[in-house]
Amino acid sequence: MSQATARITAVDTHDIRFPTSRELDGSDAMNPDPDYSAAYVVLRTDAADGHEGHGFTFTIGRGNDVQVAAIDALRGHVLGRPVEELCADPGSLFRDLIADSQLRWLGPEKGVMHMAIGAVVNAVWDLAARRAGKPLWQLLADAEPEWLVGQIDFRYITDALSPEEALDLLRRGREGAEGRRARLLERGFPAYTTSPGWLGYDDDKLTRLAARAVADGFRQIKLKVGADLADDVRRCRVAREVVGPDVRLAVDANQRWNVDEAIAWTKALAAFDPYWIEEPTSPDDVLGHAAIRRAVAPVKVASGEHVHNRIVFKQMLQAGALDIVQIDAARVAGVNENLAILLLAARFGVPVCPHAGGVGLCELVQHLSMFDYLAVSGTTEDRVIEYVDHLHEHFLTPVVIRDGHYTAPTAPGFSAAMRPESLARYTFPGGTFWAADPDTRKGQAA
Amino acid sequence: MSQATARITAVDTHDIRFPTSRELDGSDAMNPDPDYSAAYVVLRTDAADGHEGHGFTFTIGRGNDVQVAAIDALRGHVLGRPVEELCADPGSLFRDLIADSQLRWLGPEKGVMHMAIGAVVNAVWDLAARRAGKPLWQLLADAEPEWLVGQIDFRYITDALSPEEALDLLRRGREGAEGRRARLLERGFPAYTTSPGWLGYDDDKLTRLAARAVADGFRQIKLKVGADLADDVRRCRVAREVVGPDVRLAVDANQRWNVDEAIAWTKALAAFDPYWIEEPTSPDDVLGHAAIRRAVAPVKVASGEHVHNRIVFKQMLQAGALDIVQIDAARVAGVNENLAILLLAARFGVPVCPHAGGVGLCELVQHLSMFDYLAVSGTTEDRVIEYVDHLHEHFLTPVVIRDGHYTAPTAPGFSAAMRPESLARYTFPGGTFWAADPDTRKGQAA
Repeated sequence: MSQATARITAVDTHDIRFPTSRELDGSDAMNPDPDYSAAYVVLRTDAADGHEGHGFTFTIGRGNDVQVAAIDALRGHVLGRPVEELCADPGSLFRDLIADSQLRWLGPEKGVMHMAIGAVVNAVWDLAARRAGKPLWQLLADAEPEWLVGQIDFRYITDALSPEEALDLLRRGREGAEGRRARLLERGFPAYTTSPGWLGYDDDKLTRLAARAVADGFRQIKLKVGADLADDVRRCRVAREVVGPDVRLAVDANQRWNVDEAIAWTKALAAFDPYWIEEPTSPDDVLGHAAIRRAVAPVKVASGEHVHNRIVFKQMLQAGALDIVQIDAARVAGVNENLAILLLAARFGVPVCPHAGGVGLCELVQHLSMFDYLAVSGTTEDRVIEYVDHLHEHFLTPVVIRDGHYTAPTAPGFSAAMRPESLARYTFPGGTFWAADPDTRKGQAA
Repeated sequence: MSQATARITAVDTHDIRFPTSRELDGSDAMNPDPDYSAAYVVLRTDAADGHEGHGFTFTIGRGNDVQVAAIDALRGHVLGRPVEELCADPGSLFRDLIADSQLRWLGPEKGVMHMAIGAVVNAVWDLAARRAGKPLWQLLADAEPEWLVGQIDFRYITDALSPEEALDLLRRGREGAEGRRARLLERGFPAYTTSPGWLGYDDDKLTRLAARAVADGFRQIKLKVGADLADDVRRCRVAREVVGPDVRLAVDANQRWNVDEAIAWTKALAAFDPYWIEEPTSPDDVLGHAAIRRAVAPVKVASGEHVHNRIVFKQMLQAGALDIVQIDAARVAGVNENLAILLLAARFGVPVCPHAGGVGLCELVQHLSMFDYLAVSGTTEDRVIEYVDHLHEHFLTPVVIRDGHYTAPTAPGFSAAMRPESLARYTFPGGTFWAADPDTRKGQAA
């Protein structure tokens, strides 16, 4: 099939689950036993180049099948689309998906359906970047500001960011991009690591992993908190002693608290100089975050991995509720909505430090931070991408961390593709891993 | 099986869709062609009484299968539960469902998973009320305040409503309940009707239906607006002329506008004395609603049918964003979460006027307003329940409207059960209606 007439011919979905709960990797105050999972989608075309587009939503186990069903419900919007038009304007599909008048009722723009849209939209960007022969960060950084503005849905955010303001931010953002590109390729983008700080790890493991993090060049680590205050005080003391006064120590409550608890608990940890308190309460509580931020300063307030769309981020910024915007590559409706969120953060002068970890979230979100550095914020100061050393081996082009920095990907695409043998092994429930292990499988049947 | 040892033995789900888009019933500025649908669940037990619990989530067509898959994902939490314990404390299941540490990731507390929880929780309340031999409104109004407080999850709302404050509201709310019960049984609860005002109806149909509404005793009607300003001006003029100056005329934009559009459009309709503007913008936009309310007074601002949980309602009230709280029986996590929302509204002195219509939403929500009248707000002043004359014939105990009022149901339960023959006919895609009509079926394949 010639490139000009090629179409999307298949939207394949996969329910992929990893048994991470066995090791307490990823354990925190709200998620004691996650089985890191992905509702994974592959777009195939009849183009001669053979390129596919890969995307996924991250979940933590049960319900991954619901997420797959939601991606399946979008298939009719995608099948038959002309590939060239689609890749020249991923926003065209993005708009159709968020505007489906019947599916919209299931959100609107939140939860399972919205995450499914994110998976599909990200798969289109993966395909577009592969066809362009560029890593996604470069495709975005090379794009014209006018085109990027055209990829954004401004509905419900014009009171904080107009298309004209977005265009202005992108035009100014490009200035000096060449010098930054050279530095990015040489040095990478700063990372911080959460690997030492899972709630299920004992103090010895925390000590060992925190020391290793500093030795590995990380200038920030993060500890999960919120289950027991005495434990948290002890763990923060241990961590601070290991990393010394100059490495930043962030803490993360994973939505555990009410507003007043969040304030009291954060103040009780203030002696250990936490850099930020992350997800102190419900991600829906804009006013609650604002109240917490006023009370716990100079400790910064960070949130975003569960903030479900640009409208809530807009309000978080309008209300002065956040010091740090934590985008997630797979929670909102994909690259298009994250472009809006990056620009909202820039408009309010708030740094973006992405959430990552899980399955493949590091692989995806590094592209967005690198674009932010090159074309929007223009700086890496106070910007770090979360890094967790989990499950990267399942990806064809896993992230490369060097001296506490994400190395800029060079392979074309969005770094989203998993290894075929991993897909085969961890498909639930029929993959070779799960089929061989009926006891573990049972935990996945709610 | 004796009552004491009976358990939940089945959680049956049904994908039920009605082809309402053919008649433009239900058409509005955001939902031009809804096919009103229900993801329907039946709890069966091995108790000798043979009672079942029925519940559902309302959707508007495509994606109803995703909603069914989400209910299916909850089955493991429900099967095997002792019936007597469950019905004595529906909150025990409600808490387990919203706290499932893996499923929670798919929200949290929003969208498809949260609506699925609402369907299951409401089915438990239906079962509990049937076993008690009472309509749900009566079961709730007869309950002790302490027990009702125990049915509420206060997480994330204690900064606006503590358990002690809730208890106090419920204790004071009961005063004079006997007199109100007598009035309720005699007169019913006031309704307003949206049936004249769908966007797809021409002026003749609007005129005819508006005149009939007034003749039928309704003191408020509602018009859909937001697609075209000139049309809206004309339709509001027509409606106001038909109903006269004393019948309230509400308008509903179904989230169509940005904040500044909402303000300008509402002001352009102010000459027709609209009582409230409903869903002027995104249901997520607390601060946007507050800005609109400040600008359009004395026109009131109403919202809630898409407000996804108690945390967003809390903020709407804290921010002074709403004059009218529009609860929906099937959007949030069922009766338990709606108890919290009714009490939040009472705490802030804001009247509750439920959203209804769709499939069976009138049948469900009347119980909550009647409870509110008897045991919380103590008044029907400025309180009306939406009424739409659609699809009631599919229910075993449909609502009864008399002289513009909902008659208090007398049958035990939550009025949720659909007729078996309707379930059989409108099951998608295998029911006799859809199987016979492949052309219509196609519109349901996105």
